[in-house]
Amino acid sequence: MPLSNSLAPFFSPRGIAVIGASHNPTKLGYGLARNLVQSNYRGALHFINPRGGSLFGRPIIPSVSAAPDPVDLAILLIPAVGIPPVLEECGRRGLRAAIIASGGFRETGPQGAQLEKDCLLVAQKYGMRLMGPNCVGLLDTHLPLDATFLPPPGPPPGDVAFISQSGAICAAVNDWARGQGFGLSRLVSLGNQVDVTETDVLAPVAADPYTHVLTLYLEGVSDGRRFVEEATRVAQSKPVIALKVGRFASGQRAVTSHTGALAGRESAFNAAFRRAGVIRAETSEEMFDWARALAWCPLPKGRSMTILTNAGGPGVTAADALESNGLTLANLQESTQGALSSILPSAASLHNPVDMLASASPEQYASCLEILLADDGINGVLVILPPPPMYTAGAVAMALIPVIHSASKPVVIALMGERLIQEAVEHFRAAHVPEYRFPERAASALAILARRAEFLAQVGSSPALTRSKKRKGLKATQAILDEYHSSAGTGTRETAKDNNFLPTEIASRILHAYGIAVPESGLARSPDEAVILARQIGFPVALKIASPLVLHKSDIGGVLLNLSNESSVSQGFADLIKATPLSQPGQEIQGMLVQKMIPPGQEVIIGAIQDAQFGALVMFGSGGIEVEGLKDVEFALAPLTPAEAESLLDSTWAGRRLNGYRNMPSADRKAVLNSLLRFSHLAADFPQFEEIEINPLRVLPEGNGAYALDIRICLNA
Amino acid sequence: MPLSNSLAPFFSPRGIAVIGASHNPTKLGYGLARNLVQSNYRGALHFINPRGGSLFGRPIIPSVSAAPDPVDLAILLIPAVGIPPVLEECGRRGLRAAIIASGGFRETGPQGAQLEKDCLLVAQKYGMRLMGPNCVGLLDTHLPLDATFLPPPGPPPGDVAFISQSGAICAAVNDWARGQGFGLSRLVSLGNQVDVTETDVLAPVAADPYTHVLTLYLEGVSDGRRFVEEATRVAQSKPVIALKVGRFASGQRAVTSHTGALAGRESAFNAAFRRAGVIRAETSEEMFDWARALAWCPLPKGRSMTILTNAGGPGVTAADALESNGLTLANLQESTQGALSSILPSAASLHNPVDMLASASPEQYASCLEILLADDGINGVLVILPPPPMYTAGAVAMALIPVIHSASKPVVIALMGERLIQEAVEHFRAAHVPEYRFPERAASALAILARRAEFLAQVGSSPALTRSKKRKGLKATQAILDEYHSSAGTGTRETAKDNNFLPTEIASRILHAYGIAVPESGLARSPDEAVILARQIGFPVALKIASPLVLHKSDIGGVLLNLSNESSVSQGFADLIKATPLSQPGQEIQGMLVQKMIPPGQEVIIGAIQDAQFGALVMFGSGGIEVEGLKDVEFALAPLTPAEAESLLDSTWAGRRLNGYRNMPSADRKAVLNSLLRFSHLAADFPQFEEIEINPLRVLPEGNGAYALDIRICLNA
Repeated sequence: MPLSNSLAPFFSPRGIAVIGASHNPTKLGYGLARNLVQSNYRGALHFINPRGGSLFGRPIIPSVSAAPDPVDLAILLIPAVGIPPVLEECGRRGLRAAIIASGGFRETGPQGAQLEKDCLLVAQKYGMRLMGPNCVGLLDTHLPLDATFLPPPGPPPGDVAFISQSGAICAAVNDWARGQGFGLSRLVSLGNQVDVTETDVLAPVAADPYTHVLTLYLEGVSDGRRFVEEATRVAQSKPVIALKVGRFASGQRAVTSHTGALAGRESAFNAAFRRAGVIRAETSEEMFDWARALAWCPLPKGRSMTILTNAGGPGVTAADALESNGLTLANLQESTQGALSSILPSAASLHNPVDMLASASPEQYASCLEILLADDGINGVLVILPPPPMYTAGAVAMALIPVIHSASKPVVIALMGERLIQEAVEHFRAAHVPEYRFPERAASALAILARRAEFLAQVGSSPALTRSKKRKGLKATQAILDEYHSSAGTGTRETAKDNNFLPTEIASRILHAYGIAVPESGLARSPDEAVILARQIGFPVALKIASPLVLHKSDIGGVLLNLSNESSVSQGFADLIKATPLSQPGQEIQGMLVQKMIPPGQEVIIGAIQDAQFGALVMFGSGGIEVEGLKDVEFALAPLTPAEAESLLDSTWAGRRLNGYRNMPSADRKAVLNSLLRFSHLAADFPQFEEIEINPLRVLPEGNGAYALDIRICLNA
Repeated sequence: MPLSNSLAPFFSPRGIAVIGASHNPTKLGYGLARNLVQSNYRGALHFINPRGGSLFGRPIIPSVSAAPDPVDLAILLIPAVGIPPVLEECGRRGLRAAIIASGGFRETGPQGAQLEKDCLLVAQKYGMRLMGPNCVGLLDTHLPLDATFLPPPGPPPGDVAFISQSGAICAAVNDWARGQGFGLSRLVSLGNQVDVTETDVLAPVAADPYTHVLTLYLEGVSDGRRFVEEATRVAQSKPVIALKVGRFASGQRAVTSHTGALAGRESAFNAAFRRAGVIRAETSEEMFDWARALAWCPLPKGRSMTILTNAGGPGVTAADALESNGLTLANLQESTQGALSSILPSAASLHNPVDMLASASPEQYASCLEILLADDGINGVLVILPPPPMYTAGAVAMALIPVIHSASKPVVIALMGERLIQEAVEHFRAAHVPEYRFPERAASALAILARRAEFLAQVGSSPALTRSKKRKGLKATQAILDEYHSSAGTGTRETAKDNNFLPTEIASRILHAYGIAVPESGLARSPDEAVILARQIGFPVALKIASPLVLHKSDIGGVLLNLSNESSVSQGFADLIKATPLSQPGQEIQGMLVQKMIPPGQEVIIGAIQDAQFGALVMFGSGGIEVEGLKDVEFALAPLTPAEAESLLDSTWAGRRLNGYRNMPSADRKAVLNSLLRFSHLAADFPQFEEIEINPLRVLPEGNGAYALDIRICLNA
């Protein structure tokens, strides 16, 4: 049975058994029964309680076994310890879905956690799916179905679905949605997620025709890779907005690379959301501000917006807010200005923001909006409506609404004030026109519409991930690793047990196998060997101490550059041995790496770490030793698409300056993109490489390539 | 008559004349009269209109001349063109203050602007102060006095004053304050500011004992320096929050330096607000969220905060929000945990966030809060209150309020929901406990309290600006400039009229005069002169082409470094002449600068521009040619206090890495601070230096100083 089907009983049950239905109005089992009855659920409803009796005019039956067909879904609100046997009974009765609303599980300690496992075992035995435990249930305003125990009334029917890992947030959102004037389509409280997770419900909720936007409250995800897959599919048809919290809650882990130091858990979440097309909100308010706009407005064809106002101050505020949200102020066409001037007083401003002055009538508001919407250079309009001195805001709303409804461009309203605008608020809400108390919030909503339009435009246009010839790199690398592990199987590795770095020489061969350019080099164990190697490679060369214990070679003076003849190579070898302070026991110098000198060029960093949730995470940015100070880096999930690699370059100064800047010639951007793509495949192919870092990748002028000058690969422990 | 006195008639008039009072309820002159009467203004009230009659049971008299004493303030609401003669009459009648509420002035075009000037001339003739024109008037809820024409009811009496350059925003805030549950003390609408400005009213408004916080809506300031002076004084006694808009409205100006390119007008405003201790809000909502907290809460002694919640999800959200606002989560003392555990169920979390679980009663909320407030390690508490499943939020509010009132630490409430929390909202508002719908906004309010406490702690502790021995630099520089201008008075300057750069040699002498280290150098006009100079200075030296037209010397290959003997100096001179592509007419090479080579070191940039509003603005940050790409810079007003110089260093990576980083040794931070302070005096002393830039200032290891390697001074045109 496919997964999506297995969740069907939750979202369209033909009959529901409330196990723990109660007469006592202070019990949650009473609230749940009440909500089911009052929500006008049209399926069969069975109240179960061994004490019997009747409730809301229906009989209470003693057990689920006694409930007649149809029963698709059980909702359990009895003490935790009694739940496993009742689940057994449900399973035997043929139920394939249950919501455990009761608390008393994992959240209370080890005993509760064991109880939770027991529930799961029973469920698995019967192929039953479980939602919860410790949740407030679920709700569908259109079916309708209110299977929560939250105090009535529930939210009005609407277009926004809310999926939450916190029950308390469900309660607040439920209450808050009504006050904010938007309805919910569905509300899903996931609780402890012993079985059904946030990822499982994405597709079934998105399949609901009444749901136009999905909003998520997340503290984490159960399986990062699956989440990205599912969310990617869903986000292409419906907008998904996530409020992800728990940002500071993650423990610090030991890291050895710049990449590891810079990649917080949030980098992985941000990269995952970006890959999937999930919009990340910073606050709850922002999430629902955006959701309303996405649910109700057509998408703009560009970022060029206009402000229509009856007062200067809020117009300036809105202009600031538009620009700081990355939108631009449209230049009005002459014909637009002409049309405006024919209906506005001469002192009105016909530039953007269009200021109609305080005398603006409802008719002027409507006509001006109509004129602006007809201007091809304008992609959307932000209308500012403070309490007008001579008219009511309600009258203005009534005049605007038909214009907004007939437009194919988004219009959002900054409705400023409180008491004097209440009538207008109600008109706009009823008409599904998003209104916000402040211009800043309205501008942010317009920006999210533009972002969504841009996301949809690139869906499909971006070439898919290819595995292509990377297989070659993968096989070659496996061979290199096999050889290394068999040769290093004896004493050498035991002495260095804290250290899981591959020798530089091995790391270089691996990069080479993946088609990333590394300077020609070899390991010399004596000054003479170094001279021979240098002769083969060609002068000038660099000497670098080769020791798996030395991570930042230049930090300890373990590097000599630009050695241009045999004697300086021979002398350099001796000098480095002497100068390198490797005093700790277990440290060992394996020799010197003799490396071809690469001409000067721009230097960038490319790194990867393995994120426990999302797999390999690639970093790109300004290289060198100041990486962690400058923080000019960006992250994306591996393997990269070409578009994602481009975007890593575009979003960092390191990437932008490859195009040339002042007297810096344009560098070989293509070589960087190519290295980045190949590197991302390496990182994705070998999860055992805990951290991989090229710092620097030196980028030569256009057409001359990019070389990995320093490479570190750390194996997982 | 001191300024503050001259504004007294606006804020405590013994009698008011309403010129343009009207029977007609659609006229603003009716609204104004109504508001004055309904606000229970206790002074004398005179309605003036040549048509006569009576209004609200009072006679309408034909002219202000006929009004009996006392009359301190006239409020004019008659057509603009009639205002100058009526002002004359007011002047003759002995009035010294008038509010012109009418529009029809500067905002309508040149004719209106002329009318505005005419009004000012009349006012100046009689020593009369004018507020407006084109404003909504002013309001004092405690006097009481409502001299606005805004629709009733006005805002409830409160602790927050609002001063606005936009009338429409006044109307919205007036309406909005009531809905948000805070009152206003005063509201001042400044209109076109023909006379009285935002700066003028700061002190009189702050002097009002009912005003605890000043909030400002600003589109600009009339006189930047005076604003900083006044605001500094006011902010030390009462918090000042500014919403400054018009960020993107400023035109682009031609700039020639990195500093100029990076210093938007907002850098100057930010620097000015920082200097004055004015808190800048990004949105209107933020401004009033903060204002309520600052008006009602005691200030915390530190940044260590605790969250008290009855649910996990909102607790995590709040923890994120606290940390992203720069606050820390306190570690609870053992005794605190002990006390909590004695009243909470065993499954409750006794760590921060303290989660009492959904069953938390009003008594548990109150007792836990009391326990947390008694913990010395806790500086403030964020209480989370979603609609509790078993109790009313109102009952929780009633239990919490006495605990909050007896505390000397701030407590803010995240009251989540809408309908189910209304009773609690009312209790908290009446008790002056700040409540917010979302944990994020509550956390931001706590952070602003911590910031205010830190600001007050450093007031006075920071050494004042000293002029001290800088006089010497000033006089020497004047002499250098006099000499330069007299020598350059002839042909040379005319050929270079687009170019106002001082020759490098002059610029170096000026820096030297201010005590900023510059490498020893001299101007050579021939290879032989260069060799002689190099010998005097000591090898190795650098050669740099000296031409006022070449701004970025290294961009065009006009620099040779590390010349270590006479022949390379001589050869270098010839090479540079040949290699420098100075083909444009008017360009001229004055010769070569021969400069002592300074050893390698960290490189920073120090720059200054003259801001039209605030005077000299100093920039510090990462130097080199990538300045504009890396954008690692910060700004402050010149001259700097030592504390401000420290803060510039602390807020940039360039400054932090001076302390040493990885294998970079710690650099001579003191020398940088010293250079920065002296540089800031130079910039403040010479407003005719439009842009000054040292890039790089090379900083040697500790104790070895910092040298200005490249210097540009641009004179204003």
